[in-house]
Amino acid sequence: MDKIKEVAGNNTNDLVEMNRSAIVRILQQTDGCSRADIAKMTGLTQASVTKIVAVLIEMGIVSEVGFVRGNGNRRSIGLRLNAEKNLVIGVKFSRHVFSIGVFDICGKNYTKQETEFGLDEFAEDVLAEMKKQIHELLNKYKNIVAIGMAVPGPYLRKEGRIAMVTRMPSWHDVNFIDEFQNEFDKPFFIEQDANAGALAEWWFGNHGRPLNSLTYFLVGEGVGSGIVDHDRLLLGNLGIASEIGHISIDVNGPACECGNRGCLELYCSATAMLKKAKKLLPEIFQEEITNRWEACNKVFIAAKEGNEKALELVDEIAEYIGYGCVTLINGYDPEIIVIGDSISQGGNLLLPTINRIVKERILPEISSRVQIKISELTIDPTLYGAAAIATDKMLRKPSEYLVRK
Amino acid sequence: MDKIKEVAGNNTNDLVEMNRSAIVRILQQTDGCSRADIAKMTGLTQASVTKIVAVLIEMGIVSEVGFVRGNGNRRSIGLRLNAEKNLVIGVKFSRHVFSIGVFDICGKNYTKQETEFGLDEFAEDVLAEMKKQIHELLNKYKNIVAIGMAVPGPYLRKEGRIAMVTRMPSWHDVNFIDEFQNEFDKPFFIEQDANAGALAEWWFGNHGRPLNSLTYFLVGEGVGSGIVDHDRLLLGNLGIASEIGHISIDVNGPACECGNRGCLELYCSATAMLKKAKKLLPEIFQEEITNRWEACNKVFIAAKEGNEKALELVDEIAEYIGYGCVTLINGYDPEIIVIGDSISQGGNLLLPTINRIVKERILPEISSRVQIKISELTIDPTLYGAAAIATDKMLRKPSEYLVRK
Repeated sequence: MDKIKEVAGNNTNDLVEMNRSAIVRILQQTDGCSRADIAKMTGLTQASVTKIVAVLIEMGIVSEVGFVRGNGNRRSIGLRLNAEKNLVIGVKFSRHVFSIGVFDICGKNYTKQETEFGLDEFAEDVLAEMKKQIHELLNKYKNIVAIGMAVPGPYLRKEGRIAMVTRMPSWHDVNFIDEFQNEFDKPFFIEQDANAGALAEWWFGNHGRPLNSLTYFLVGEGVGSGIVDHDRLLLGNLGIASEIGHISIDVNGPACECGNRGCLELYCSATAMLKKAKKLLPEIFQEEITNRWEACNKVFIAAKEGNEKALELVDEIAEYIGYGCVTLINGYDPEIIVIGDSISQGGNLLLPTINRIVKERILPEISSRVQIKISELTIDPTLYGAAAIATDKMLRKPSEYLVRK
Repeated sequence: MDKIKEVAGNNTNDLVEMNRSAIVRILQQTDGCSRADIAKMTGLTQASVTKIVAVLIEMGIVSEVGFVRGNGNRRSIGLRLNAEKNLVIGVKFSRHVFSIGVFDICGKNYTKQETEFGLDEFAEDVLAEMKKQIHELLNKYKNIVAIGMAVPGPYLRKEGRIAMVTRMPSWHDVNFIDEFQNEFDKPFFIEQDANAGALAEWWFGNHGRPLNSLTYFLVGEGVGSGIVDHDRLLLGNLGIASEIGHISIDVNGPACECGNRGCLELYCSATAMLKKAKKLLPEIFQEEITNRWEACNKVFIAAKEGNEKALELVDEIAEYIGYGCVTLINGYDPEIIVIGDSISQGGNLLLPTINRIVKERILPEISSRVQIKISELTIDPTLYGAAAIATDKMLRKPSEYLVRK
């Protein structure tokens, strides 16, 4: 009989850590809060807040920032998170390319770099290059407290393996945990890409608080989703919950590599769109496609310029994204759906059709309470999400992870 | 700026309550645990456990039960929950019928009663009868600590209203919270039926612990699901997450009352099966159907007896339940799917086809780790679930709710 997580007991240290986490999280979202504001938001007494904040200041995690306007116009001392002392590395691994960036725990980007590779390159060579680049960044930036990595789903998180890497079979046997867990002297965390995007929107998106339920709808090379429900990522048993891309929208539809039929991913991924675009719009795809993100954008530009065929194609894609949103609403009842990745470049070309489908297919008293947005993050949500994976852990266990003076 | 739940602070009382809850929950699952067992499972020191247990005994929530075999064959004192002192009333409200039962927090049933009503009866009359019966039970059973109610989904839990009651429009405006919250001097909790079923399986099913993720798949008059992921019910923003019955399996399929097309519910609910059965098997449906649960069973009996048409129909239904399981796996990554309600009476007639579909459509390394079971609860999981709704609250806040000596 071992310790069972769901009935784990808590001691006084755990309690202290929970409260430190609550305060650090408030400051991550709201710069310049006063102790009185924090007392209100947490429900803790002002005396408790003062005590905890004193320790966080002592630890170098929080600073005072001078006076802010408080209750009833009284001046109070504002507090801020010392984000610049707590940097994280985000690593996005995907087909064709990996990106690495340095961020702080408030989402500020310090540097980022991209490396392309061929599907025929040996996995071990690509991994060696990734490790080299991460080591270089660790040498250059001294305040790094953790590393987060986003990989394509379905990622089996306890095992550290990707269950299916479309068109990249040699990656099937790579154990990401074994490869990275002990390579650096910093904590290393991995999640699948859509979960990473959901955390990016949760921590770095400006969606306001409180927020009961946020869904990130990744529509790019693959299609996936990440759900933050009542402050927690929906993980499932193996870590592969919310694979919206492989939920069927037609059980008699075409076969998918995953075994299922009529998977949503077959209808509205970048791959699906570009395949059709090459046939319908040969004039804009005379050269071979090298950058697929730009190729998607070409289709959207043609549509904006009034190209009829491009408009029709974009509308068809939007319709399927709309069906995806209908499934997400029935499946997860989100307050906000944020659509991101390469197809989301279509922005306002897509939204009217998506909203129409949702309005037609969801009861009004439900559909009227879901916001559907295009991601406004200026950094690729998956790379940003890789940083958010690490940030999430830091903010939940601040004294364990965050730097001391 | 009000208190924000997701950054709520915790004080020492909260800590004490969390640990009491952990211990009470262990005893709810495992009768006769020793203090040493509990220390192991919670990770608390034996001194802490001893202290907390002393208070729980003092409060009359826990008792000692004599010696049990402990570590290394040493005898230890066993502990048990005084379940009989902590009864809950479960109320199931559904189309045609409501049921009320008295249970203890370990799931033992003391009494249950069913009341049928017509779709044309006034909601207020039905509600008055429900209240009367509940009051009678409260008078008769003195140890009742809370009442739980299960209603058909989609139930908007903050508002207390059912968003859509198929064929029962007069119930649309009933506010269940207003009706029941202050009617009794006991805490009253409401959830939708499939969530209730999930809690019944979670607290009263014998699925073992730890359990990362359990999905209850309700296949009856309606089709729905309830997800317990890492010890928490998936609720979404309005409380209507996991409406699997309204996830489309064919976006161009027939229209559903909910606005969507090709909803799973249209293909494998009891309503769908009985509609087909009446045409295919006129010989067994000569009289009008009064009890729909029994009518479903008639089809299964005919299939068991080798009736070819019944077998075909059952197989078709099983196929759609299989597609539902595929969606549930892609959507929620459960460790166990428990199928319940009237269609689950088909049991072993259904399982081979369901398992075949799942095996065909889910990657083997994923499908091999999901158990698909028929509910083994001997009490209707929705009624039992109504009791589980109340039980769940009691076990999470034992000192707030459970009876003192």
